[in-house]
Amino acid sequence: MACCGNCFCCQCCCREGETRTPEELTILGEFRDEENEILPRKDYEKAKKYEAVRWLMMFAIGVTVGLVGLFVDFFVRLFSKIKFTVVGDSVEKCSDKGCLPLSLLELLAFNMTFVFIASMLVLIEPVAAGSGIPEIKSYLNGVKIPGIVRLRTFLCKAAGVLFSVAGGLFVGKEGPMIHSGAIVGAGLPQFQSITFKRIKFDFPYFRSDRDKRDFVSAGAAAGVAAAFGAPIGGTLFSLEEGSSFWNQALTWKVLFCSMSATFTLNFFRSGINFNKWGSFQLPGLLNFGEFKCSDGDKKCHLWTAVDLAFFVLMGVVGGLLGALFNCLNKILSKYRIKHIHPKAKFIRVLESLLVAMVTTVVIFSASILLGECRDLSSPTAHNSTCFQLSSGEDINSTIRQFFCTNQTYNDMATLFFNPQEAAIHQLFHQDGTFSPVTLSVFFLLYFLLACWTYGVSVPSGLFVPSLLCGAAFGRLVANILKVELGMDIYSGTFALIGAAAFLGGVVRMTISLTVILIESTNEITYGLPIMITLMVAKWTGDFFNKGIYDIHIQLRGVPLLEWETEVEMDKLTASDIMEPNLTYVYPHTRVQSLVSILRTTVYHAFPVVTENRQNERDFMKGNILVSNNIRFKKSSVVSRAGEQRRRCQSMKSYPSSELRNVCDDQNVVVEPAEEGEDLLQQMLERRHAPYPNLYPDQSPSEEWTMEERFRPLTFHGLILRSQLVNLLIRGVCYAENQSSATQPRLSYAEMTEDYPRYPDIHDLDLSLLNPRMIVDVTPYINPSPYTVSPNTHISQVFNLFRTMGLRHLPVVNAVGEIVGIITRHNLTHEFLAAKLRQHSITI
Amino acid sequence: MACCGNCFCCQCCCREGETRTPEELTILGEFRDEENEILPRKDYEKAKKYEAVRWLMMFAIGVTVGLVGLFVDFFVRLFSKIKFTVVGDSVEKCSDKGCLPLSLLELLAFNMTFVFIASMLVLIEPVAAGSGIPEIKSYLNGVKIPGIVRLRTFLCKAAGVLFSVAGGLFVGKEGPMIHSGAIVGAGLPQFQSITFKRIKFDFPYFRSDRDKRDFVSAGAAAGVAAAFGAPIGGTLFSLEEGSSFWNQALTWKVLFCSMSATFTLNFFRSGINFNKWGSFQLPGLLNFGEFKCSDGDKKCHLWTAVDLAFFVLMGVVGGLLGALFNCLNKILSKYRIKHIHPKAKFIRVLESLLVAMVTTVVIFSASILLGECRDLSSPTAHNSTCFQLSSGEDINSTIRQFFCTNQTYNDMATLFFNPQEAAIHQLFHQDGTFSPVTLSVFFLLYFLLACWTYGVSVPSGLFVPSLLCGAAFGRLVANILKVELGMDIYSGTFALIGAAAFLGGVVRMTISLTVILIESTNEITYGLPIMITLMVAKWTGDFFNKGIYDIHIQLRGVPLLEWETEVEMDKLTASDIMEPNLTYVYPHTRVQSLVSILRTTVYHAFPVVTENRQNERDFMKGNILVSNNIRFKKSSVVSRAGEQRRRCQSMKSYPSSELRNVCDDQNVVVEPAEEGEDLLQQMLERRHAPYPNLYPDQSPSEEWTMEERFRPLTFHGLILRSQLVNLLIRGVCYAENQSSATQPRLSYAEMTEDYPRYPDIHDLDLSLLNPRMIVDVTPYINPSPYTVSPNTHISQVFNLFRTMGLRHLPVVNAVGEIVGIITRHNLTHEFLAAKLRQHSITI
Repeated sequence: MACCGNCFCCQCCCREGETRTPEELTILGEFRDEENEILPRKDYEKAKKYEAVRWLMMFAIGVTVGLVGLFVDFFVRLFSKIKFTVVGDSVEKCSDKGCLPLSLLELLAFNMTFVFIASMLVLIEPVAAGSGIPEIKSYLNGVKIPGIVRLRTFLCKAAGVLFSVAGGLFVGKEGPMIHSGAIVGAGLPQFQSITFKRIKFDFPYFRSDRDKRDFVSAGAAAGVAAAFGAPIGGTLFSLEEGSSFWNQALTWKVLFCSMSATFTLNFFRSGINFNKWGSFQLPGLLNFGEFKCSDGDKKCHLWTAVDLAFFVLMGVVGGLLGALFNCLNKILSKYRIKHIHPKAKFIRVLESLLVAMVTTVVIFSASILLGECRDLSSPTAHNSTCFQLSSGEDINSTIRQFFCTNQTYNDMATLFFNPQEAAIHQLFHQDGTFSPVTLSVFFLLYFLLACWTYGVSVPSGLFVPSLLCGAAFGRLVANILKVELGMDIYSGTFALIGAAAFLGGVVRMTISLTVILIESTNEITYGLPIMITLMVAKWTGDFFNKGIYDIHIQLRGVPLLEWETEVEMDKLTASDIMEPNLTYVYPHTRVQSLVSILRTTVYHAFPVVTENRQNERDFMKGNILVSNNIRFKKSSVVSRAGEQRRRCQSMKSYPSSELRNVCDDQNVVVEPAEEGEDLLQQMLERRHAPYPNLYPDQSPSEEWTMEERFRPLTFHGLILRSQLVNLLIRGVCYAENQSSATQPRLSYAEMTEDYPRYPDIHDLDLSLLNPRMIVDVTPYINPSPYTVSPNTHISQVFNLFRTMGLRHLPVVNAVGEIVGIITRHNLTHEFLAAKLRQHSITI
Repeated sequence: MACCGNCFCCQCCCREGETRTPEELTILGEFRDEENEILPRKDYEKAKKYEAVRWLMMFAIGVTVGLVGLFVDFFVRLFSKIKFTVVGDSVEKCSDKGCLPLSLLELLAFNMTFVFIASMLVLIEPVAAGSGIPEIKSYLNGVKIPGIVRLRTFLCKAAGVLFSVAGGLFVGKEGPMIHSGAIVGAGLPQFQSITFKRIKFDFPYFRSDRDKRDFVSAGAAAGVAAAFGAPIGGTLFSLEEGSSFWNQALTWKVLFCSMSATFTLNFFRSGINFNKWGSFQLPGLLNFGEFKCSDGDKKCHLWTAVDLAFFVLMGVVGGLLGALFNCLNKILSKYRIKHIHPKAKFIRVLESLLVAMVTTVVIFSASILLGECRDLSSPTAHNSTCFQLSSGEDINSTIRQFFCTNQTYNDMATLFFNPQEAAIHQLFHQDGTFSPVTLSVFFLLYFLLACWTYGVSVPSGLFVPSLLCGAAFGRLVANILKVELGMDIYSGTFALIGAAAFLGGVVRMTISLTVILIESTNEITYGLPIMITLMVAKWTGDFFNKGIYDIHIQLRGVPLLEWETEVEMDKLTASDIMEPNLTYVYPHTRVQSLVSILRTTVYHAFPVVTENRQNERDFMKGNILVSNNIRFKKSSVVSRAGEQRRRCQSMKSYPSSELRNVCDDQNVVVEPAEEGEDLLQQMLERRHAPYPNLYPDQSPSEEWTMEERFRPLTFHGLILRSQLVNLLIRGVCYAENQSSATQPRLSYAEMTEDYPRYPDIHDLDLSLLNPRMIVDVTPYINPSPYTVSPNTHISQVFNLFRTMGLRHLPVVNAVGEIVGIITRHNLTHEFLAAKLRQHSITI
């Protein structure tokens, strides 16, 4: 087709000047994946050049994430140090003078100021609250949550976590670090920003969702790598959370990115903290210290086969505690969604301040009232061997003598009046430092406060609080076994296993968490115990509820796809779960029809079809073989009308109204609202309001009979909403009395210019369009998306959908007619379970 | 359909008693994968029970692999110790008495006896030769090589490697360990054996190719884990080599299996070597020792940022050396295939003995003539800090004083007269022990001999020789930098990096090798240098040739599928590469046709089709819109006849005869012989001989015109060869005057009873079959395989094929007609490249 100029079409449609604000546009933004890639493709020759740029990008992302980690770590340390020094001095003075309330006020002032700042930052960008891992998990699964990879979110998150950690809340900086890493990954290769319009270079290399997702994986991995000093664990984290397709080349790039992050951080921290530029001595922000037996002690083992039995028990307990934690937090989160989120925003700030106040008061009073004064010599007397904190401070400097007489120290204050990392370090390596009562009280308080804190609107990670809580539990077990039962064990191992058990019970991660913990301890022999503990904790916890991240994803109403379907789902086939009411376009369609379709539906892709009006004439030859074959063909071809009839039949015999709307006669197809109260659904429903009929001479379909409405349609391909809108806005159409060759053609660059936020159909000024013009969509359709046959088993459908990262999977019967379409919503666990119930009832 | 008894069909076909020998049956055995799973499925209820059994199996595989590793390690140590003690004593005596030739003879006797035994074992089972990694890689890629996971192969390999290592050849035991692990994985869950017919329990749980492949992955991972003490590396190894689909659950099981292997080995070795049962002190068979600075030296770093530049250079050199190694080995292997393999088998034994003899003489004379006598005090004087060998021996005990006066030792003999692991250990940790000249000579000799040895018919790994060779190179660099240039470096790191560079240059593994080396050193901070070195080495090497394993796979003619296609391949579509000549069956087919088809073709699956004889009647309404749409439909539907015409056209304009046979008029479809001289192809060709027409009244097709031969066929599903043969053998058919409901039905158990070796069509006694009976295959077809449309891009086709583990991918056009089929051969790099050349010429 010749490419004619734009001159002719100026009359019918007109390019619009400005795009709308991002908020309005990004409504349930979905990935437009490889299946939907439009035809005018990128140059093949440039691909190799891209490859080198891609490696550079990975390096740049790694370095940036490392620097972000450095920044957060530096300021958290600085603020914590100032706080603890000022308050510590005050306490020491006031212990004598009796002005302890003054110290409490000082501490309160520090903490509440910090938390207030964190909370205000979250007000600016609400998605910066929480750990960010549920959001990243959703993103990598294929569901975009608006604003989640925005630069503004990054700034609020990185600065916010700094203040929420420094503010003494029981939160960690690891989750936010991972989220920040993901944003760096999403943003850096784009060289543009929505938040700061001025940041816009002409660098259109990686403007596809697939590339972006790859970079987000890498960024998240780099975040883990920087936070834990665990590059392999980070890579496995992004595989475990995001990928379904093992791509060797990508994995290798992600590992490189993680390594870059770890070693950037390492390089600068070694330089800044030790002034040893160029050496690499501090792997990650979280360092568990070195577990090893003292050189002299030949009988000492880190763990023995007998200990494994205890580890399994600890795994069970960890799983139970984790399930309890998740359960309480779920109740709390539900309460928050119902009663706090609908109210004015400052209520959330008040809640954060309340949490900060309670936390401060609790740690202060617990240290005074419940702490035990222990002999200062005891920590060194036992066989702990590692006195080097990662930051180079002697571990004894973290011991607090608050409220105790000379030569003794307060073990509760030692845990509470230190950064959490230092407390973990002590629990891992200081033998005999803490009394069992202190550990129990500490565990209980920490458990409850951490549970309350997670979900408050400040940036807050869960890893470090869970580790600290679990380490207290593990150390308690070790104390009991060692002191009460007199067993010869290495207590540090038990503290570590306790930490793993509780963390595993809460987050239910498996492979990546195992590797992260192994890498953090830098001790390969802990592999088996950590793995067994995590496995047992996961199994135990899964018996009761899901992991905390999955709970929060569920509460947000994100239609996440699991790894696999359950085996029993294979009783269903594609035709059971597909959406049979189709909104389709023809290869050549009038502008008015396109506008109607686009304005009255919310679908992101439309099948391109032609009608199939032939009569089938089968001839029976009297030959039993031929007639049997013809009969098989007739019976095996599922048609839309037949399928629809079957459904309506089964619907009548099925009492529940659960899926009633499949059978209604509305032309506007409403997606089955399976997710109930989810937020996205609410946004969707806003669009579902019946749109005024723009062109009254259209839409004769309402009087159609079923046979007419479900007449056979031959499937030719898929076209995306964004592509159709683009065609309309750029005036790609031809007049009825002209050939379709007169239609102007768009290049790949023109089609993707507006990535990632395409203009909306509602921006289109209808008065500028000539409704009688015809649009030829054939050059822009994807003529060969993956398809499935109606009797494909669900496991096959699911694997194809999940692995290939699809958004729309047309169901095409044996004679090439489209009978339905499968989207993410048709494959969520809830939808499948409902269909299975229905299926077993009708059978 | 009612299930009637077998009574009726006894007349027409009859169950055969015995199956044929496995050798005859396993001709290009292919995976019958999930796509081809037959319809009568397993019970859904039993699936959960399977899950627990699966975990148990993983544990059992891990423990078994660990025990195998223990066995091999124990005997290698024992034999080596005996050998070196006897020969060492003799040398020390003879140095004085001048009877050195006697010592040489003793050593020769030891080595040649051991190698002879190893070689004889390989004679029993020829696939036990080599490292086994190419074979396992092929297997996990989807190509079975006959006998590769047999119990007999396992026994020969495990026993053989023991003798070839003990026999002083420059081979490692790691590759064979991985192969052994894979065999354990394949065999253990089957509870039966072909080699020992008596081992046959009734345990039909995991009799599908998919399950088997999962277990083989786990076994291979366990092999790596046991060999290197690297469970994470092992898991990543089997992901890197085998998987395309990241399955979280499977990966977790594989990791568990690897951990079990590591810790079984660890448990027993700690117990046996230290008598410390229950402690876990020896991670793997290969231990690199602890890299650390001496406690006093504050200025010492394992590596600094400056060193990274040297590591990159070493990576380049390692890549070049590896490419040279691969190039030489390829030439040698080609020579072997041409001149040694066709000859009598004992020639191979003689070659092994020759290699053993030359190796022995070289190390003996090199030690006498080229060794340098160095001061005994020097090793301890430098800053080497680790004197503990993994086996608990003092490292000084491995120093050899051969041919040297008192208080000095022979540095060449110290390298050559020790097990290779000890030599690696010395190169990593003994500073200043070896003179640069010795290192250079050692490297050169070792390089050449190892290159010659790999490919000799003994079980032989490559990892340890490559590491040793590379360590010598690295130590040489370190010596030059430290002594000549006076730089402040940690020599052990350079030795390690040298080892990584050379090994990376030879095998070109990336992720898994990085992780294996990190885990073996137990030092997480080596991550970045190892990774960068491996990356550079791989890039440099890839510039010249492929990795050694890929070279050997290529020499065997295995049609391996890469990770991805190249971007430029996307100029092609599915219709360009598919095989358009189809051999198909109808849903109801006569026995005689089925037998003809099965006997005259070698395909493993057949499309089930019906003819599509309708005339298409399109009506033009005068409406430009409708007629445009109809025109689009007509132009977009690719038909078989049209496609065929296009091909013949382009063929005429294309001078080469490369793809001529696509257009020939033979009804017997010959697969394009792209792989040239490959072995499998030879086996195939034996079957291609024109089979006598069994039923002369059939096959009228030879006089058909092209339109008749390529008439439209509606696609209904796929059926496997094994299923058709099974149906025939078990008498599943009905008479013409009966209804198809009278046909007996087979259960899932009956269909899979003969797994993994199904009976062959040539076993069928034709006289027992009634050729006029009709077989209704419809209950047994897979009605919903994945399909693609003819204009799907190659990258999409490839991803689907590779990721879903398919064997046959039907190409179906927009009206449901099958136009071709894509198999593994259509997607190999060679085939695609040929098609692309053809494509660019015709355009």
